[in-house]
Amino acid sequence: MNSQRPLDRLFCFETKDSCVGILSGVEEFRRYPERMNKRILSSNNLGIKRFFALDTRAYEKGALDTKTKGMLDLVASMVLRCSDCIAYHVIRCVQEGVTDEEFFEALNVALVVGGSITIPHIRRAVEILDQCRDLQKKNKHPGL
Amino acid sequence: MNSQRPLDRLFCFETKDSCVGILSGVEEFRRYPERMNKRILSSNNLGIKRFFALDTRAYEKGALDTKTKGMLDLVASMVLRCSDCIAYHVIRCVQEGVTDEEFFEALNVALVVGGSITIPHIRRAVEILDQCRDLQKKNKHPGL
Amino acid sequence: MNSQRPLDRLFCFETKDSCVGILSGVEEFRRYPERMNKRILSSNNLGIKRFFALDTRAYEKGALDTKTKGMLDLVASMVLRCSDCIAYHVIRCVQEGVTDEEFFEALNVALVVGGSITIPHIRRAVEILDQCRDLQKKNKHPGL
Amino acid sequence: MNSQRPLDRLFCFETKDSCVGILSGVEEFRRYPERMNKRILSSNNLGIKRFFALDTRAYEKGALDTKTKGMLDLVASMVLRCSDCIAYHVIRCVQEGVTDEEFFEALNVALVVGGSITIPHIRRAVEILDQCRDLQKKNKHPGL
Amino acid sequence: MNSQRPLDRLFCFETKDSCVGILSGVEEFRRYPERMNKRILSSNNLGIKRFFALDTRAYEKGALDTKTKGMLDLVASMVLRCSDCIAYHVIRCVQEGVTDEEFFEALNVALVVGGSITIPHIRRAVEILDQCRDLQKKNKHPGL
Amino acid sequence: MNSQRPLDRLFCFETKDSCVGILSGVEEFRRYPERMNKRILSSNNLGIKRFFALDTRAYEKGALDTKTKGMLDLVASMVLRCSDCIAYHVIRCVQEGVTDEEFFEALNVALVVGGSITIPHIRRAVEILDQCRDLQKKNKHPGL
Repeated sequence: MNSQRPLDRLFCFETKDSCVGILSGVEEFRRYPERMNKRILSSNNLGIKRFFALDTRAYEKGALDTKTKGMLDLVASMVLRCSDCIAYHVIRCVQEGVTDEEFFEALNVALVVGGSITIPHIRRAVEILDQCRDLQKKNKHPGL
Repeated sequence: MNSQRPLDRLFCFETKDSCVGILSGVEEFRRYPERMNKRILSSNNLGIKRFFALDTRAYEKGALDTKTKGMLDLVASMVLRCSDCIAYHVIRCVQEGVTDEEFFEALNVALVVGGSITIPHIRRAVEILDQCRDLQKKNKHPGL
Repeated sequence: MNSQRPLDRLFCFETKDSCVGILSGVEEFRRYPERMNKRILSSNNLGIKRFFALDTRAYEKGALDTKTKGMLDLVASMVLRCSDCIAYHVIRCVQEGVTDEEFFEALNVALVVGGSITIPHIRRAVEILDQCRDLQKKNKHPGL
Repeated sequence: MNSQRPLDRLFCFETKDSCVGILSGVEEFRRYPERMNKRILSSNNLGIKRFFALDTRAYEKGALDTKTKGMLDLVASMVLRCSDCIAYHVIRCVQEGVTDEEFFEALNVALVVGGSITIPHIRRAVEILDQCRDLQKKNKHPGL
Repeated sequence: MNSQRPLDRLFCFETKDSCVGILSGVEEFRRYPERMNKRILSSNNLGIKRFFALDTRAYEKGALDTKTKGMLDLVASMVLRCSDCIAYHVIRCVQEGVTDEEFFEALNVALVVGGSITIPHIRRAVEILDQCRDLQKKNKHPGL
Repeated sequence: MNSQRPLDRLFCFETKDSCVGILSGVEEFRRYPERMNKRILSSNNLGIKRFFALDTRAYEKGALDTKTKGMLDLVASMVLRCSDCIAYHVIRCVQEGVTDEEFFEALNVALVVGGSITIPHIRRAVEILDQCRDLQKKNKHPGL
């Protein structure tokens, strides 16, 4: 079973009634980028289209597995302090099976390398992690 | 006819009824900075006042025209990932007559130089561009 | 009387009725970090715990007094453009007795070193400064 | 006659005797990247190869001419403070016919946006500009 | 056999005669930091001492192995564009057994996230990687 | 007696015989910027001239004394990781009478805020501090 699927379905097809309160931040994070990416790719700028394709491919399994790549992206986003990127990569890390212990060690690397200036983003990353874990605990998604 | 005027009027004197939905983000962006700039300049710090004056003058026509300067500022703001600066410079670029094709090429330069970490700001820039184009299409502002 | 106390009490024990309008931004800024810091420290990551301890100690009086350190932190946060860090350090500077003139000179250093890209953060810093001064003017807090 | 050619020939095929003193810094800048780029592209990483291709294409004429793109890249490199990138883009700007007045205005935009922290890189940019102008004055290269 | 040892010995106790040409850059990189770290730790600043200790501990095996952590640090250093940090982490990655394919994939993540502005640092990283591989090929160090 | 003078004389008029070994790095740091600043100001770009003037004025005594401002600049340069700026501000801090204890506390603030990525610049700052202290110990310069 594809590890990316369950959480994907979770975010996209979940009845609003049951988890909108928990998910609101995460959902909001997903809808806006999807809509804007579609708009951006509808322009005729070939360079941007190719960059988006490169970006997607950089996360695919190669010599490194997707879990390791997910953590590399998370740490890069943390030290560069990009909120939206962090939110995206936290969700991906959860989908790839990163445990809490692994997650906090990756955050610690980012904190030590990037300094206390990253702390607000560490808070945000942990908040999104907790939202994801709450969804997983509800146990509707055996694939995770 | 001064190219800066029409959009300026657009943002400032537009009846709320007709375009508040479209413009809300843009208007909000304009009102807060104007109020705070006035407050900051009311302090007696001469250095800050002079910096604000330098900042204004840097955008005026010289050996380079204001359209080129608008794009230089936009790309600088993109790679430094400053949301408010980007919003400001997108509006200025529209006022200076930057076409969509030129706009996306400038964004592509920023994306390639600055990497995928700039993508959230590219989304925001395109969103504001679209809001501006919507206003222009309504054709109330022949000056544009 | 400890200089950190009064404003601290101000933010924490104030009746909502009297100053929630003024303080909302500031309060919001305080509640979320406190809750998330507690959550983060509840994880078993020793490295993160020690970093948070180091961070706290770095602001304590040593060869440099806490007022000077407050301004060092403020300027560092300004040039690195971290909104939450700036809000935190503006409040601390007010608590340490930094005057408006000193405050604007520190902002000017940040503006000249970091450039116009810091202007949106200078606006935010001054907005929070003004909120703090409003509270001080109400004169409920003789400790300040 | 292709505008990129003359200066290119200048840097690569010039007899050492006549201009090594003037050019040393510039030549050094060119040889190392060329050698390392070849080495990097000899690896089998498709993503990196494609990125390098995207990077090259981003500078080609499209809706914006190469001179404008040269200045966009220069300003982006200045505010991100990348020495090697700045050296590369200064040479390209000279090849594209950017005048001294235009060059200093672009630097001014970078200085105001990026702050005094960019000054060391402005010095370096002007030093390389002067080396290029010296070569042009020797008038050996009619193509320029 | 400890994976960190062999390369360590290599860099420190190697007879100059046999590999100074190859190693010069790498050796230089090691000697200066070691000397300065000793000097810095000889000061009585407890905060700095504790930070250096935290920094060391962040790289030790925990929930994540040292190889994964080595790559996290490498990518963080790449996107933040710190030459000395990159040199240090490339050597550590080699010591941890990162293969060329894994190495280039990690660099690709950094390149896509951080943009073309990281290219000069990618060159430097590959140069140091090649120096390390040359030493390993000489096969004097069976531990590697 | 002007606190800026003695070290200034030290760096400029010292006989090469006695301290060139110690000072080489520092001298080199001073000559190049002075020469290039003169060249840059010889251009007719009014914006750049005014920025350089603003930069100079930002360091003058106002509500904050020049010693505090020296440390604000040092910490800003540290977290933004600009080698030349750091060298300049370390020398200025020495001239303003910053003690070693104060100096290391300011460095600690920069280290905690900016993270381990600043360590290479902390090494450089301490190296320059030591060069300055060596000169002061030779006791040729009673003004210090």
